[in-house]
Amino acid sequence: MTTIPGYRHGDPTLPASPVRPDDLERMKKTCLFGEADAAALREAKEKLAPHVEAILDVWYGFVASQPHLVAAFAEPGGPPSAEYLGAVRRRFGQWILDTTSADYSPAWLDYQLEIGRRHHRIGKNRADGVEAADHIRFLDLIPLVYPIFATIRPFLEQGGTPAARVDAMQHAWLKSLLMQITLWSHPYVREGDF
Amino acid sequence: MTTIPGYRHGDPTLPASPVRPDDLERMKKTCLFGEADAAALREAKEKLAPHVEAILDVWYGFVASQPHLVAAFAEPGGPPSAEYLGAVRRRFGQWILDTTSADYSPAWLDYQLEIGRRHHRIGKNRADGVEAADHIRFLDLIPLVYPIFATIRPFLEQGGTPAARVDAMQHAWLKSLLMQITLWSHPYVREGDF
Repeated sequence: MTTIPGYRHGDPTLPASPVRPDDLERMKKTCLFGEADAAALREAKEKLAPHVEAILDVWYGFVASQPHLVAAFAEPGGPPSAEYLGAVRRRFGQWILDTTSADYSPAWLDYQLEIGRRHHRIGKNRADGVEAADHIRFLDLIPLVYPIFATIRPFLEQGGTPAARVDAMQHAWLKSLLMQITLWSHPYVREGDF
Repeated sequence: MTTIPGYRHGDPTLPASPVRPDDLERMKKTCLFGEADAAALREAKEKLAPHVEAILDVWYGFVASQPHLVAAFAEPGGPPSAEYLGAVRRRFGQWILDTTSADYSPAWLDYQLEIGRRHHRIGKNRADGVEAADHIRFLDLIPLVYPIFATIRPFLEQGGTPAARVDAMQHAWLKSLLMQITLWSHPYVREGDF
């Protein structure tokens, strides 16, 4: 059991996701995610787990350099909340481990929807009891896949991993990001359109 | 001037996109899209233009192999419409050329929104006057980025292109796909959330 505040993967009191396991299987087919990808993600976990803080340093450096992104952690016109940044950082570290665990249980689906709500005005700020921007715009979500995809590569390469294995891990990572960003978008999508 | 039926890039009678050039600049920052990416896309255009039909063969083969994707081209329970598949194919070929032109004018933004409408129930089938599935589900859109990203690489590699240039072109291609799928999602997103 983790004691990360606000981390609710596996919490049976979370609302059940309206996205069903069937829907996840459909997404896997569309992005060609198979058993080899799940294995590649678990291989990546071994590479990434010792470097979670260094990875977060890269990502936080990137977000800090982009005023329109760091604004999510601030009241409008104010400075970013160190408390909020720190709370999200702990969960983001765990998210690296969860993403590379490739465990797509119903509980995982439920938590993906909760992550989506925390970006959207229906749930933003609540998990951390903070007063910051009340909504992350939809157009900020999908383009962020690129830096999260690109910056992981040097960490996968560490220790002289063969390029073909790095490619396999990085592609599986991209597929997972694309499926997760789809799930996180659910609160933004009109009723009946998902 | 192209004579591809239903191709409306540059058509001044298209509704203006509610997504403004500012929003596009914001997305470019988020996915680290810069001048070097625009140049890499134009370099890719030279590589891809002679092979548009071969690329479309790969993509159409993939879609045909996935019943839940090819269903977009069929009446529920019926066979796919050869007429509809063919009409979309001509525009999809032009889309390869447009994507690698990296010309992000307001007219381009307007046409991206039209492409989004053609996936969504508000505009599906109308451009081609067909009767097929009336809506493409949101969850089918973003995961499709992966095959479109991965399958382009062999075409970029043709002619012995150095791996570093192939990487640059493929990454710029991915950034463009992520921004375009964001724009195409606009009709699916709740009022005020985009």
